[in-house]
Amino acid sequence: MSSTPANPDDRRYVLALGCLDRPGIIARITSFIAEFGGSIVEAGYHSDTESGWFFTRQAIRASTVPFSLDELRTRFAAVADELGPRTEWQLLDSGERRRAVLLVSRDGHCLHDLLGRAASGELPATIEAVIGNHPDLAEMTQAHGIKFHHVPFPADPAERGPAFDQVRELVDAHDPHAVVLARFMQVLPAQLCEHWAGRAINIHHSFLPSFVGARPYHQAFARGVKLIGATCHYVTPELDAGPIIEQDVIRIDHADTVRDMVRQGRDIERVVLARGLRWHLEGRVLVHGRRTVVFN
Amino acid sequence: MSSTPANPDDRRYVLALGCLDRPGIIARITSFIAEFGGSIVEAGYHSDTESGWFFTRQAIRASTVPFSLDELRTRFAAVADELGPRTEWQLLDSGERRRAVLLVSRDGHCLHDLLGRAASGELPATIEAVIGNHPDLAEMTQAHGIKFHHVPFPADPAERGPAFDQVRELVDAHDPHAVVLARFMQVLPAQLCEHWAGRAINIHHSFLPSFVGARPYHQAFARGVKLIGATCHYVTPELDAGPIIEQDVIRIDHADTVRDMVRQGRDIERVVLARGLRWHLEGRVLVHGRRTVVFN
Amino acid sequence: MSSTPANPDDRRYVLALGCLDRPGIIARITSFIAEFGGSIVEAGYHSDTESGWFFTRQAIRASTVPFSLDELRTRFAAVADELGPRTEWQLLDSGERRRAVLLVSRDGHCLHDLLGRAASGELPATIEAVIGNHPDLAEMTQAHGIKFHHVPFPADPAERGPAFDQVRELVDAHDPHAVVLARFMQVLPAQLCEHWAGRAINIHHSFLPSFVGARPYHQAFARGVKLIGATCHYVTPELDAGPIIEQDVIRIDHADTVRDMVRQGRDIERVVLARGLRWHLEGRVLVHGRRTVVFN
Amino acid sequence: MSSTPANPDDRRYVLALGCLDRPGIIARITSFIAEFGGSIVEAGYHSDTESGWFFTRQAIRASTVPFSLDELRTRFAAVADELGPRTEWQLLDSGERRRAVLLVSRDGHCLHDLLGRAASGELPATIEAVIGNHPDLAEMTQAHGIKFHHVPFPADPAERGPAFDQVRELVDAHDPHAVVLARFMQVLPAQLCEHWAGRAINIHHSFLPSFVGARPYHQAFARGVKLIGATCHYVTPELDAGPIIEQDVIRIDHADTVRDMVRQGRDIERVVLARGLRWHLEGRVLVHGRRTVVFN
Repeated sequence: MSSTPANPDDRRYVLALGCLDRPGIIARITSFIAEFGGSIVEAGYHSDTESGWFFTRQAIRASTVPFSLDELRTRFAAVADELGPRTEWQLLDSGERRRAVLLVSRDGHCLHDLLGRAASGELPATIEAVIGNHPDLAEMTQAHGIKFHHVPFPADPAERGPAFDQVRELVDAHDPHAVVLARFMQVLPAQLCEHWAGRAINIHHSFLPSFVGARPYHQAFARGVKLIGATCHYVTPELDAGPIIEQDVIRIDHADTVRDMVRQGRDIERVVLARGLRWHLEGRVLVHGRRTVVFN
Repeated sequence: MSSTPANPDDRRYVLALGCLDRPGIIARITSFIAEFGGSIVEAGYHSDTESGWFFTRQAIRASTVPFSLDELRTRFAAVADELGPRTEWQLLDSGERRRAVLLVSRDGHCLHDLLGRAASGELPATIEAVIGNHPDLAEMTQAHGIKFHHVPFPADPAERGPAFDQVRELVDAHDPHAVVLARFMQVLPAQLCEHWAGRAINIHHSFLPSFVGARPYHQAFARGVKLIGATCHYVTPELDAGPIIEQDVIRIDHADTVRDMVRQGRDIERVVLARGLRWHLEGRVLVHGRRTVVFN
Repeated sequence: MSSTPANPDDRRYVLALGCLDRPGIIARITSFIAEFGGSIVEAGYHSDTESGWFFTRQAIRASTVPFSLDELRTRFAAVADELGPRTEWQLLDSGERRRAVLLVSRDGHCLHDLLGRAASGELPATIEAVIGNHPDLAEMTQAHGIKFHHVPFPADPAERGPAFDQVRELVDAHDPHAVVLARFMQVLPAQLCEHWAGRAINIHHSFLPSFVGARPYHQAFARGVKLIGATCHYVTPELDAGPIIEQDVIRIDHADTVRDMVRQGRDIERVVLARGLRWHLEGRVLVHGRRTVVFN
Repeated sequence: MSSTPANPDDRRYVLALGCLDRPGIIARITSFIAEFGGSIVEAGYHSDTESGWFFTRQAIRASTVPFSLDELRTRFAAVADELGPRTEWQLLDSGERRRAVLLVSRDGHCLHDLLGRAASGELPATIEAVIGNHPDLAEMTQAHGIKFHHVPFPADPAERGPAFDQVRELVDAHDPHAVVLARFMQVLPAQLCEHWAGRAINIHHSFLPSFVGARPYHQAFARGVKLIGATCHYVTPELDAGPIIEQDVIRIDHADTVRDMVRQGRDIERVVLARGLRWHLEGRVLVHGRRTVVFN
């Protein structure tokens, strides 16, 4: 699927682009890259015939670009202009470590997993801070040398505004590429969803759109499903309805209680969140309405 | 999972039972079997702690039962009486081929698959007849030497009563152990659901409870899910809400159109229906409210 | 994954190419296509960093090519020449139905499955003929209006030369794009492997390289594995060692006998063979030493 | 699959037994339990028709046993005697936390995962100590308040005897129920395999029996497989050939380099080891020659 950079020589400039489809786009972009001798080490293309939209992601070996990334951006802007006014694009530097802030509650399995991946260099980001509405996970976080902020939330949902303001401030201080709701268990206000649009990522413990909202494993038990799942998605104002980045499932049977599902579901939640977050950080995910294009 | 009988010596009497749980049930049942020297070759037990209900399935080697199945039933009835008035049980003979009737429409992939399994002896049932609301699948059915009935359905759902009456009559003529809606695409009237309760089995082309009703692949595409599924369930008056026997999923990605999903989904539908039907026919499925206990 | 052509307008010319990697290849190929206004509807690229080899598959909407396929081939040959002397490529017409010949023995589940897919238009090929070393599957084949040839094989492997000669003649009469060993159970002589190189496709009933050779389910049972699998691969002179196109597995447990594995394994064999064959026929599989690049 | 104990009331006495099969065994055991009013909350049975061996695991609610576990063992010994001289059995107390010692090298993903599970109470054991042939994972271990022992291994395999002696001593000091080779990367001497027989558990990073020995991901890449896997098995003197407890796989494709496989494989290794270890600790795994019966 995706490729792991091996060493500094593997530094890449990653172009992700979406525009109105028409013949010649690939030729235009790749000719631009070929002109300066750029070497494309990974390329993904997708034409959405239904919407008439075109998407691409291209990873260029940085050592083959004979000028700076800023210069590359300036030059490519002229190409993007030719592709129409609605063209959206970004150029990432795989050599620049990206920043993530994590929001958590009491359940630590996703946090523990991400801390381990970050520590072993497997996560293409540094975890800048962890914010919890409960203090339970402070120790685990600090053991990895990462700052933990406890922001208590009032019991009454109507009075949580100031707490969310504080969370926003703490998060924004790091200008993160990803705001990860790692089993945060709080519904973000619409305003925060908008503010972090395209950066806020949630892990929901069901195979969406089944079992939206609270206690999905209880819902799954009551319905008698034979597989349970997890969904990593971008957060939008409509609850659990944002564009899906990744999903997976695990088989259960009649002997599994809700608590068995909770335990076994954790193994899926961890992996689905880690995969989705990784793809987001590597510029592999392009959002298109309620759908995502994932070049992995 | 389940065991395939090898030869006539493998004939089994299969007990399936559900009752209120209390200590000593397994001992009572297995002592009954041990008293006449019966050999249990497969045994499944499940205590549902939430409902306080107990379930078991036991396969006894028929050659170790020194009297007839009727006699076994008579003797066991006394045991069942001891287990309380709400006890439900049946004793099947694996040596007695069971009967299935199939309801189809235009899409032949499930029918073709079941015909193949029946022909190769893999399906523990004979297909007695196939009934279609379109004539398209007559030839395929008849090539296997099986009777096909075409029952045209009026366009207006309000006028379909007589057609359903005719279907009911054709089905009931075979007194089948399973009425299989093999992509029948018609909603059974509540009255027929009741009439065939516990015997009517549907394959729905989504991972229920996601995408109930019509055009589930279109719904799945619009939602942007990363896996599509199929669900085999008992038919009840509430649409696509009956007890689930089996489910499975297959991975898709952003490049898959609705038609790609339809094509790939067929491979899941076929297998999920065949597994669910097989388990039903072998007495492996015990229904408990909206849930099933499947001893496979 | 792969896209299903919707209607005649969806006719595509499919380029599959492998060559020594260097910067500018994608630009060269896509500029060539853009020059005549060709619309690329599906594109896959792969740079194998280990071998320094480059692979691509591009599907061009045929209606956007203002000249014949022959002309397209002639023009592209000049481009391919620029890409170096070891460049290999082909240009397929998705509108031209492809031909398959099937070799079978006694086990009919793969044959039955492929016949069903061919009949429903799901397989991008016509089944020209079926050849069996036993007559068992003649009736099933002929029911689909397809010619069946029975070529008896002597018990002594040393005396099978003439039988293989006859099979070769019967196959070659159709000049097929695929020679499918659909559970043929005979080891092809090296000479036939060479003769059909890149066209002979086998389904092996194990997750290769585990359990090469005869009776893989018996081997799997003896080893106590927890998953069984199937492998679709190109046939080469070394037994079960050809480039793998597709694999999949299914979970089993300690209660499954060899016969249970045989039964459950069929569901995997069918699907793995159908997927691998489909990809081969659509020009999605490029062989590279013992590995394959599959643009699906 | 398996059930998670909810609270102290959920304490269970777990019987695991294997003996020569004959009619009446289940009745004998369950009658014994029923006589004192014991409540069976989970029961698994398996008759291996090939070997004529019988296996069972039964979880009895401890609060329904009107005497001590020692007394239960004494009474059951008489029953076991009736089942023949080759009968093997044990009676575990789920309320008694079990002990595990981990052997590691440099790769920390399995260790990190098990530390997290132990910390959250998900692992039914305490990690008594971690022993590494490299010091790399000392800090991670100690952050969880667990003792880490560094035992350097000489480069020459012939000189590793004393190091293994030291490992043995350190392990045996804890009399552990499980000795976990969590990516230990050292082949245990036959003598240690015998000494820890039935308690030493390894995670191998391939789908055994494929790719035995060193660098399995390199082997998998070279062979061009389409799925990679992990295997949790008991350690025996023959390398990577011990009875398999659990296996799983993950899909890869041609774009995945060896390093991509290493990264993605970790997610499978972690989960497969955790599942296998859990089942072992809960007395769910019965070894039978080279095969295992897993009541999960």
